[in-house]
Amino acid sequence: MLPMDQKTDPTTSPGSPAVAPVIDLNADLGEGFGRWRLTDDEALLSSVTSANVACGFHAGDPATMRRVCELAAERGVRIGAQVSYRDLAGFGRRAMDVPSGELAAEVAYQIGALEVFARAAGAAVTYVKPHGALYNRTVRDAAQAAAVAEGVRLAGAAAGRALPVLGLPGSELHAAAAEAGLPCVEEAFADRGYQPDGTLVPRSERDAVLTEPDQVVKRSIRLARDGEVTAADGRTIAVRARSLCVHGDTPDAARLARRVREELAAAGVGVRAFA
Amino acid sequence: MLPMDQKTDPTTSPGSPAVAPVIDLNADLGEGFGRWRLTDDEALLSSVTSANVACGFHAGDPATMRRVCELAAERGVRIGAQVSYRDLAGFGRRAMDVPSGELAAEVAYQIGALEVFARAAGAAVTYVKPHGALYNRTVRDAAQAAAVAEGVRLAGAAAGRALPVLGLPGSELHAAAAEAGLPCVEEAFADRGYQPDGTLVPRSERDAVLTEPDQVVKRSIRLARDGEVTAADGRTIAVRARSLCVHGDTPDAARLARRVREELAAAGVGVRAFA
Amino acid sequence: MLPMDQKTDPTTSPGSPAVAPVIDLNADLGEGFGRWRLTDDEALLSSVTSANVACGFHAGDPATMRRVCELAAERGVRIGAQVSYRDLAGFGRRAMDVPSGELAAEVAYQIGALEVFARAAGAAVTYVKPHGALYNRTVRDAAQAAAVAEGVRLAGAAAGRALPVLGLPGSELHAAAAEAGLPCVEEAFADRGYQPDGTLVPRSERDAVLTEPDQVVKRSIRLARDGEVTAADGRTIAVRARSLCVHGDTPDAARLARRVREELAAAGVGVRAFA
Amino acid sequence: MLPMDQKTDPTTSPGSPAVAPVIDLNADLGEGFGRWRLTDDEALLSSVTSANVACGFHAGDPATMRRVCELAAERGVRIGAQVSYRDLAGFGRRAMDVPSGELAAEVAYQIGALEVFARAAGAAVTYVKPHGALYNRTVRDAAQAAAVAEGVRLAGAAAGRALPVLGLPGSELHAAAAEAGLPCVEEAFADRGYQPDGTLVPRSERDAVLTEPDQVVKRSIRLARDGEVTAADGRTIAVRARSLCVHGDTPDAARLARRVREELAAAGVGVRAFA
Repeated sequence: MLPMDQKTDPTTSPGSPAVAPVIDLNADLGEGFGRWRLTDDEALLSSVTSANVACGFHAGDPATMRRVCELAAERGVRIGAQVSYRDLAGFGRRAMDVPSGELAAEVAYQIGALEVFARAAGAAVTYVKPHGALYNRTVRDAAQAAAVAEGVRLAGAAAGRALPVLGLPGSELHAAAAEAGLPCVEEAFADRGYQPDGTLVPRSERDAVLTEPDQVVKRSIRLARDGEVTAADGRTIAVRARSLCVHGDTPDAARLARRVREELAAAGVGVRAFA
Repeated sequence: MLPMDQKTDPTTSPGSPAVAPVIDLNADLGEGFGRWRLTDDEALLSSVTSANVACGFHAGDPATMRRVCELAAERGVRIGAQVSYRDLAGFGRRAMDVPSGELAAEVAYQIGALEVFARAAGAAVTYVKPHGALYNRTVRDAAQAAAVAEGVRLAGAAAGRALPVLGLPGSELHAAAAEAGLPCVEEAFADRGYQPDGTLVPRSERDAVLTEPDQVVKRSIRLARDGEVTAADGRTIAVRARSLCVHGDTPDAARLARRVREELAAAGVGVRAFA
Repeated sequence: MLPMDQKTDPTTSPGSPAVAPVIDLNADLGEGFGRWRLTDDEALLSSVTSANVACGFHAGDPATMRRVCELAAERGVRIGAQVSYRDLAGFGRRAMDVPSGELAAEVAYQIGALEVFARAAGAAVTYVKPHGALYNRTVRDAAQAAAVAEGVRLAGAAAGRALPVLGLPGSELHAAAAEAGLPCVEEAFADRGYQPDGTLVPRSERDAVLTEPDQVVKRSIRLARDGEVTAADGRTIAVRARSLCVHGDTPDAARLARRVREELAAAGVGVRAFA
Repeated sequence: MLPMDQKTDPTTSPGSPAVAPVIDLNADLGEGFGRWRLTDDEALLSSVTSANVACGFHAGDPATMRRVCELAAERGVRIGAQVSYRDLAGFGRRAMDVPSGELAAEVAYQIGALEVFARAAGAAVTYVKPHGALYNRTVRDAAQAAAVAEGVRLAGAAAGRALPVLGLPGSELHAAAAEAGLPCVEEAFADRGYQPDGTLVPRSERDAVLTEPDQVVKRSIRLARDGEVTAADGRTIAVRARSLCVHGDTPDAARLARRVREELAAAGVGVRAFA
């Protein structure tokens, strides 16, 4: 059971003076491989404040990683490592029973590889977010969550700083990250269906992904400003989030991301990278 | 034509007071992948002073990279990135026409990945050596040599220091490295046949690899102390080298490496990592 | 619950005239990849009657597949496709949540690739056996079992014949194979620990693998002649098997396989490929 | 020097009664991988008469291969194996020095894998065409050409029939195929620049690819009807071709292929699969 299905407002308290809500916008970038393209990296980078850059295990060849880091650095977009199972054929969407030692090392490997391009561009890797099946698995799998946290800790030790972990509030991943002394950044999803316990509706089910732009925009504002969302069963649940994920791998992704950003601003929500 | 087929002694000059010769011993390590093992890393690390660690493109899974870095750091063995074409099936021994931008990024990616494990072990990547076909190709291919140098420069910029490049004296790789402001470390091979121009006899030919231990030991001492070797045509050629490569991927490799080290010492050659 | 934990003798019936027991010996072959070797294919082929040839997804490069097929054909050893998850880094030992359509196609792909080398050598692929995590997963996972059966059916349709599936008696894999109209060949393991329900002790546990040669030989004879084995809890269980698996990926594998074969013969058990 | 820069008309002879010219239209299909798509397979299959199906080494996952084979079989489009170097990261566009034995086995492996899906769909692999760098390399590299021919011969032996090889007239590939007893089918390119010797302008150069649809259509008709093309230097050269390649990996590829087909028909050229 995830500890988030009670209604609380993370950004304001009753009786306290109103504080303008602030949110980070993140998206998956650089998700092509060699000849194949998926994300319109250049367009997305003009809307998001954090770029989850694919590191070569589910997508992301080195030349693309370099280019995305250079573009992100130019625009002041924060660079994060989007780490994955080693699974190009399945785009990292197939859960794998990877032993802890292997998984920790694979995570560290990916972060280190990206760090080169981030630093060479004058920036740095400033957070880590697991991709796809690894993200979903580590919501509940404590052993894999601990392995991911260990990989992030290792890469942070190498870089001389603790790397924040972007994840679902209440996830085993965040528990393991906290245990390893890593900062946790809670994330919500602008275009994914929620279950009543605060987890995402699996992609295999209906209502997993919201495709209607107006709905995505409305949900984004409500998540950012009010800290709540309507779950698949119609119930309102509280979702505490410092970052909002917009997806980058659909044809209209860049346009939608821009609209989300603009309408968040219009609704009085500050859009900037998490502290 | 490579500029090394004249006889000169790099370590002493006639008339000057004798200086004790010194040499670095390097070997390829961590060249397994997943279930497969090739090199006896633990044994080799007790003989060599520099470890060329495979970075995942021709061999070297992340967990192995981590373990080898930890062992090397414990024993004070210098860690270098052994970068390769992306070719697990061919063990990096098949030359590839990789465009410069891709190659530079692939080289930087590998160095960055290794750096995590080196630093997490309390050490650092302190040099780079191309593997197999990339090593051979960049002896003469100026474009690929420049791409490798660019990748090394990029990774060095990320790490805040210039990374030396281990290579064949007179190679295009060393020319490109020098051009990019990178230190060059000349290398000789204890167990490879030499052509009269100072390049190696290709593996496809007879006499490419010396397998007789006594011969390897004798050649090592002569290379380290006298700076010369007998080429395949019987001619004596000068080979200026600050590092001597012993191979790690044969059953008796670890024993031979130990013997080379001991007999170098007995012959008055200091064995230590290059400065 | 697997339906095999009652004691029955599959080879003789009380009161009927004794029939000489017969068993097939199978082993995993060709489990190297490129530069890496694991199995002593030539030696194993002089002992086993069925060769489970790796098809490139967990091990087995095309040149090795060709060579093993030629050797097997020369010696009259039956050729089977050892199909796996796509996982070179994990040697196919990490279970993966592969969607059914992908898994079926991946299985068929591997069988088709091997069929070329088998037929070019004058033989054919005559059975299929899943490898590693896919073998274990399809003992209980009905969806993946059905996908594997569908892949085998597809390849069989292409080849114009139904391909038998080697598997654990009572497994979901055999249920799905039977459902798909495929012959099932029951298999037992000479050197693996058994749980009381007839499944194997997982590799992560103690007693997963028997390493004492005398014990392996004794167990082989008892399995082949008496159709029973002592489970990890000391209980005798019935194991109905037409094929006996000996492992090929240990240093002494070839010697042990030879000894198993010789002692089976000495114990009056006929060793020949299943019909 | 390739033997084609003299003007001859392959389809009609002076004085003989006019024969309606006929041409096969081929395109590369199934060139996605997992999550990534490149070619609009369904649309292309309604225009071409031969489908060069990617076999997994540069593109083409098994599920896509299966789907493309089923679609092709439904529409009566001939299925060919588009074999490649093992190079997903480079989309098979980077020439590799693959030893002959490895290359032959890799080619046979790919053909065998595709054959499963073709046969399961009620069709068969009826020809082979190398992709990208392998296509270009085997125009002049006799050793690799022989290795490809050996791989095709092997797969044909397995299938019980000789598989035709689609290639550039006068290429080493066709010489090796003929030597191996394989039928050769000459191919021309509707949208590639030609050098005066009949080879293609390399992709790295200007004028490598024609992008103007009218020009592609005009060139197609001239190639099919008159057996000639204007080379990059303005000279008219004869190009004897039984198949015409239209590219499938551009956004407008399917539309252009349809237009080429329609205008060929309008110009009196029969469009059907080669005999």
